[in-house]
Amino acid sequence: MAGADHRGRLIAFEGIDGCGKSTQARLAAEWLGALYTFEPGDTPLGASLRQLLLGSGDVVTPRAEALLMAADRAQHVDQVVGPALAGGRWVVTDRFSGSTLAYQGAGRGLEEGELVDLVAFATDGLAADLSILVDVPLEVARGRIRASQPDRLERLDEGFHRRVADGFRSLARSDPNRWAVVDGARSVDEVASEVTVVLTKRLGRPKGSE
Amino acid sequence: MAGADHRGRLIAFEGIDGCGKSTQARLAAEWLGALYTFEPGDTPLGASLRQLLLGSGDVVTPRAEALLMAADRAQHVDQVVGPALAGGRWVVTDRFSGSTLAYQGAGRGLEEGELVDLVAFATDGLAADLSILVDVPLEVARGRIRASQPDRLERLDEGFHRRVADGFRSLARSDPNRWAVVDGARSVDEVASEVTVVLTKRLGRPKGSE
Repeated sequence: MAGADHRGRLIAFEGIDGCGKSTQARLAAEWLGALYTFEPGDTPLGASLRQLLLGSGDVVTPRAEALLMAADRAQHVDQVVGPALAGGRWVVTDRFSGSTLAYQGAGRGLEEGELVDLVAFATDGLAADLSILVDVPLEVARGRIRASQPDRLERLDEGFHRRVADGFRSLARSDPNRWAVVDGARSVDEVASEVTVVLTKRLGRPKGSE
Repeated sequence: MAGADHRGRLIAFEGIDGCGKSTQARLAAEWLGALYTFEPGDTPLGASLRQLLLGSGDVVTPRAEALLMAADRAQHVDQVVGPALAGGRWVVTDRFSGSTLAYQGAGRGLEEGELVDLVAFATDGLAADLSILVDVPLEVARGRIRASQPDRLERLDEGFHRRVADGFRSLARSDPNRWAVVDGARSVDEVASEVTVVLTKRLGRPKGSE
């Protein structure tokens, strides 16, 4: 990958479904003047994979699920994220490698070390400069999801989602230099305001966006 | 995976498109009374992936291609190959891990060590007991393909197919205990006859199939 000095910054919003990270990722991208993108599904191939992963009734084994998410990420990095960063643009992505570790690791029970290697292969070593965990109590997130149309992963049992939520918290605790946690159980504006504080403190802002 | 003593044997037929391995895999399975299967595409998820990989006009980056092939293999091992072996059945598969090393490694230029790890993740460590390379001169294989409808990989340039063919030969040379090479440039019957000799010498035959 391009050296850190010669590229934009990559910021990932992470968290369980219903935590509000998609809204926060969009607001942060707007505030930064950054490219907003998401996983899975933000390339033509990725859109097909998203449908396979979340929309179809087919059985998908845990390893196949991890590999399909990784394939989506590989394509996303190669076609969208990498070129933007190489051109000096900042990128905000709704989900990145942390989601694989939390969902397929903590949630599905695959070994974290194997998933770390898998993610490194998919991204060719590209890591987020900062991952922001939008943390909300499981009950809050579940209440928000019930109001919408849940997909295949969202329909999984509460034990799964509790493991994923704990997995995200554990990732953030174990790498505080690359993770920040914001309390997502407040109003959209309050969370967004804290996000701007975190971003300014950790990364500054892109040239020309102030 | 189940211990080697308590399961059937896994035999993979490998080689470039047009080498005749699919025909030989089917004949070998019949001769052994084994399950015949193939990659990519021999599960419902795999069939969708095969269409994405070989049939669609979408760009697929090398890493995404390797990960999609691995996803197909993970699902194939978990749902088809693994259960058959665990039940004591022998399995003959048309393509397995060697194809990832030859196509995405030698062909696409991804690093072999990374692909070895990827394949081990996908298969949860299951390796073929014997991989049989059906080796033919590139010109013979290309002539056979031109007569049919080439897919996305088959349409790639001759340099790509030459690297893949050399990649297969290099794999077979570097691990002679797990690979055998048969000359595929002869009649179907002649090749099949050599395959039965190789199988008998290397693995014997399943109980009850003699």
